[in-house]
Amino acid sequence: MSQSVKKPLNVLQKAVNKHVSIRLKSDLEYRGKIYNVDSYMNIILTDAEEYNSGNLIANYGKVVIRGSNVLFIKIDDEI
Amino acid sequence: MSQSVKKPLNVLQKAVNKHVSIRLKSDLEYRGKIYNVDSYMNIILTDAEEYNSGNLIANYGKVVIRGSNVLFIKIDDEI
Amino acid sequence: MSQSVKKPLNVLQKAVNKHVSIRLKSDLEYRGKIYNVDSYMNIILTDAEEYNSGNLIANYGKVVIRGSNVLFIKIDDEI
Amino acid sequence: MSQSVKKPLNVLQKAVNKHVSIRLKSDLEYRGKIYNVDSYMNIILTDAEEYNSGNLIANYGKVVIRGSNVLFIKIDDEI
Amino acid sequence: MSQSVKKPLNVLQKAVNKHVSIRLKSDLEYRGKIYNVDSYMNIILTDAEEYNSGNLIANYGKVVIRGSNVLFIKIDDEI
Amino acid sequence: MSQSVKKPLNVLQKAVNKHVSIRLKSDLEYRGKIYNVDSYMNIILTDAEEYNSGNLIANYGKVVIRGSNVLFIKIDDEI
Amino acid sequence: MSQSVKKPLNVLQKAVNKHVSIRLKSDLEYRGKIYNVDSYMNIILTDAEEYNSGNLIANYGKVVIRGSNVLFIKIDDEI
Repeated sequence: MSQSVKKPLNVLQKAVNKHVSIRLKSDLEYRGKIYNVDSYMNIILTDAEEYNSGNLIANYGKVVIRGSNVLFIKIDDEI
Repeated sequence: MSQSVKKPLNVLQKAVNKHVSIRLKSDLEYRGKIYNVDSYMNIILTDAEEYNSGNLIANYGKVVIRGSNVLFIKIDDEI
Repeated sequence: MSQSVKKPLNVLQKAVNKHVSIRLKSDLEYRGKIYNVDSYMNIILTDAEEYNSGNLIANYGKVVIRGSNVLFIKIDDEI
Repeated sequence: MSQSVKKPLNVLQKAVNKHVSIRLKSDLEYRGKIYNVDSYMNIILTDAEEYNSGNLIANYGKVVIRGSNVLFIKIDDEI
Repeated sequence: MSQSVKKPLNVLQKAVNKHVSIRLKSDLEYRGKIYNVDSYMNIILTDAEEYNSGNLIANYGKVVIRGSNVLFIKIDDEI
Repeated sequence: MSQSVKKPLNVLQKAVNKHVSIRLKSDLEYRGKIYNVDSYMNIILTDAEEYNSGNLIANYGKVVIRGSNVLFIKIDDEI
Repeated sequence: MSQSVKKPLNVLQKAVNKHVSIRLKSDLEYRGKIYNVDSYMNIILTDAEEYNSGNLIANYGKVVIRGSNVLFIKIDDEI
């Protein structure tokens, strides 16, 4: 368990190519691989899937999610 | 799969003339070709179509979408 | 089809005196001629008409619309 | 019809002492004379009247309206 | 009637010790004497009373109201 | 009654260790002692109690309240 | 009880590795250990659990919570 204070956004930067689940404020969820991300939490996912209440709704390939809508980002792999 | 960290907004800049689907917070969706885009995700679409729940509602020609309303942008073509 | 990346706000600046339809987040729509516009999308329309669900509600002459309410701006004429 | 690009906020500054109707996001409407206004659209009205759905609700004398609530401002007189 | 363009926030600064009514976006209303105010419209009222639909709900002594909640401020005394 | 214009945030800074009631936009209320506060109205309360419609819901010890949620802060003691 | 004015965000920085409960505006609650946090209250939790109305809904491992959604953060351990 690291004692160093790595900032959340730095951790996200290092999560490029990892699989994540992104929950939006509207309860929609997007799962995919982080292609890139900026300090506003704007994120591009590849192989993106849209879920609503746990059900797969759609496949999106490459999507740009505007950071202002993000509730949380779950990083599946260990960092 | 690129390991480089290209920022989401740079990727959008390079998507000029590509076809995209833009989902707004209000669940409206706009499909068209990116004419240009800025760092706030303000976007001009040409040949824009408005969809609601998957149904075509209207054709708009050229529209300027204010970035603050954007939920996500799906890029149809590969980048 | 221009390959140059003209910013959305520059395009709006050049649309002065053109007819536009402005949809607000609240679904109200305003149609008129752009008198001027700034980088926040604050816009003055002349000969402004207010529509709700496609029905003409009111005529306003000259109105200043606060940019934060704008969903999108449809430019009727070609740019 | 002026071809010059006068900014919306400059036009508002020049509307001091003119009668305006200010519609808020909440559908309330305030009518009165502009005493002053700043770049955030904070506005002081004198002889202010409050309307709801077209009905006069109250008289307020001098009120300071916080700009963030403004939907649009209708300027009654020609500029 | 002054022709000078005194900014709304300057007018508020000069309203210290005057009685005001502050309407919030949530329709709550606070009446009291301005103790001080800043450029964000954060305001301290003394002898503050809370009203809901015109009914006195509570007395608060000294309250700090966060400016982001303010709809408008009615200044009872002449400035 | 002071004529000096002490800013609201300075007054809050001097209220450290005083008892306050903090009303949030969501109508929840937190009562406790100010441990510290910053210019965004982020506040740490100690001995914090949560109230809903006047009923004690929970005790929280030390909580950090994000300033953006604050409606108003009532300072129990005189300043 | 410290008389010094430690800022809320500094206190959060020192709470790394402590257990916290984070209540969001949407009433969801996340409990876990602070991995890191920045000045916007973006927070990474490890061993994160999601609760709704006191019921455990899900386990998330490592999550990045966007600060704009935070209502308050309860720090379980003494600082």
